[in-house]
Amino acid sequence: MSLFFFSDNQIKPINAAGVPVTDLLVQRGYGIFDFLRVAKDKPLFIDDHLDRFFRSAEIMRLNIPQTREDIKNIVKELIQKNQLAYSGMRMLIAGGDAPDGYTIEHPHLIIIQAPLAEPTLALPQSGIKLASYNYQRQIPEVKTTDYLMAIWLQPWMKQQGADDILYHHNGVVSECPRSNFFLVTKDNVLVTAQQNMLKGVTRKNIIEVCTQNNIPFQVRDVNISEFATAKEAFITSSTKRIIPVEQIDEFAIKSNYEASFAKKIYDLLVIMED
Amino acid sequence: MSLFFFSDNQIKPINAAGVPVTDLLVQRGYGIFDFLRVAKDKPLFIDDHLDRFFRSAEIMRLNIPQTREDIKNIVKELIQKNQLAYSGMRMLIAGGDAPDGYTIEHPHLIIIQAPLAEPTLALPQSGIKLASYNYQRQIPEVKTTDYLMAIWLQPWMKQQGADDILYHHNGVVSECPRSNFFLVTKDNVLVTAQQNMLKGVTRKNIIEVCTQNNIPFQVRDVNISEFATAKEAFITSSTKRIIPVEQIDEFAIKSNYEASFAKKIYDLLVIMED
Repeated sequence: MSLFFFSDNQIKPINAAGVPVTDLLVQRGYGIFDFLRVAKDKPLFIDDHLDRFFRSAEIMRLNIPQTREDIKNIVKELIQKNQLAYSGMRMLIAGGDAPDGYTIEHPHLIIIQAPLAEPTLALPQSGIKLASYNYQRQIPEVKTTDYLMAIWLQPWMKQQGADDILYHHNGVVSECPRSNFFLVTKDNVLVTAQQNMLKGVTRKNIIEVCTQNNIPFQVRDVNISEFATAKEAFITSSTKRIIPVEQIDEFAIKSNYEASFAKKIYDLLVIMED
Repeated sequence: MSLFFFSDNQIKPINAAGVPVTDLLVQRGYGIFDFLRVAKDKPLFIDDHLDRFFRSAEIMRLNIPQTREDIKNIVKELIQKNQLAYSGMRMLIAGGDAPDGYTIEHPHLIIIQAPLAEPTLALPQSGIKLASYNYQRQIPEVKTTDYLMAIWLQPWMKQQGADDILYHHNGVVSECPRSNFFLVTKDNVLVTAQQNMLKGVTRKNIIEVCTQNNIPFQVRDVNISEFATAKEAFITSSTKRIIPVEQIDEFAIKSNYEASFAKKIYDLLVIMED
């Protein structure tokens, strides 16, 4: 069965068309997107995602032809038509056709829905390994389609025996390519990066539940020197909520699952989705 | 009239199809390209462009399904079918569909031919203005489709009253977004960047004609502090050969057109194309 998607101002079967080869997205890599999870036909935290989507578009000077309400209606219609209880919804603004190959004139919206496994009910028991890499994403506050470095580094990452990459710039930790990073310091404070990264919706939700539940946290520069003494680490995303990290480079991080910040916060996030 | 292009292993009308919305090029900005000029039905310096194209592909781990001979034959067929005496030929490798949205499995070739004005017979008399900007392109030795910064900077560039951007990284000059940069020092030596930029085919040809004609040149780091005392400056590309530069930031550069390095080299490049 072919799924439906939105493109060229209409909902149509996904195999019907692609992005024109003359589009700035294809020729110059100029585009932004956002991605949200749909659970039991409900697009989770869609207002937060739309806030970020419109902010990304504004910074990149990509005028979205649709209003927020238009987009919400398209999302609703796709959910009804595609009948995928658990899925991911990718909203994309392509730079569009540019007669001179360079000037933004006709940005356009594409929305794709695809099946997605629902995260587990409880925080996963086992963690992943991260390999840190010195790199600063360009225009980092925007969710651009630029994943050149992330994909290019995949073979290197596998050579390190790692499951994901953790970017830092000259020692200051920013983010993983598709998730935010949190660490619990030797003094039992939860910390996460404050700048030069994408501010995830799950990260925002975690800051909210920490505030509401008196969980000590700091939003500040995090340094790679803190890996050695970390009591706990995890990454966060809309797709997975939280994934524990048990190693970063050569540093093993041993946390107590039951007593972890991650487990407590995970349970609060699950409640928040209801 | 619709032009023909190559995609999905066939030559077909260009309005027929686009790049699938699920392609790594669309979703993750993962692709490379090369661009060459066709003059009087002859694809200029196609071997140099194919050398760079295959090198870009190798570095980015994009296996080109076609051989060099295959590509030359497709280019020849497009030239015959499209009947554009003067044109540009864009060869592109898209990352292709990735079931996990991340792993390169099916890279594919797209070739687009489009009309292009032939450069003037002699070097243009008037020059352009450049605005310098501190930025380092990622994976700079590869001609990726990443022009995010170049396009994003267009309004800034226009505010500066400039015609193009000149990238430097902490004072060391690299390139313009779509061309190489040359400068004549106060000691009458032609200099151009040696690293952290894309090595253009026209740049290569200039190095060749300078060597053959005893024109003094150096391939070395060029510093922005050299703008103030430059006797001449120009940018080079396959599309335009050479464009004189008469201002960089606040520094006016006044060269003698008839006695310029640019004019001498331009004339040699025209001969080289025959």
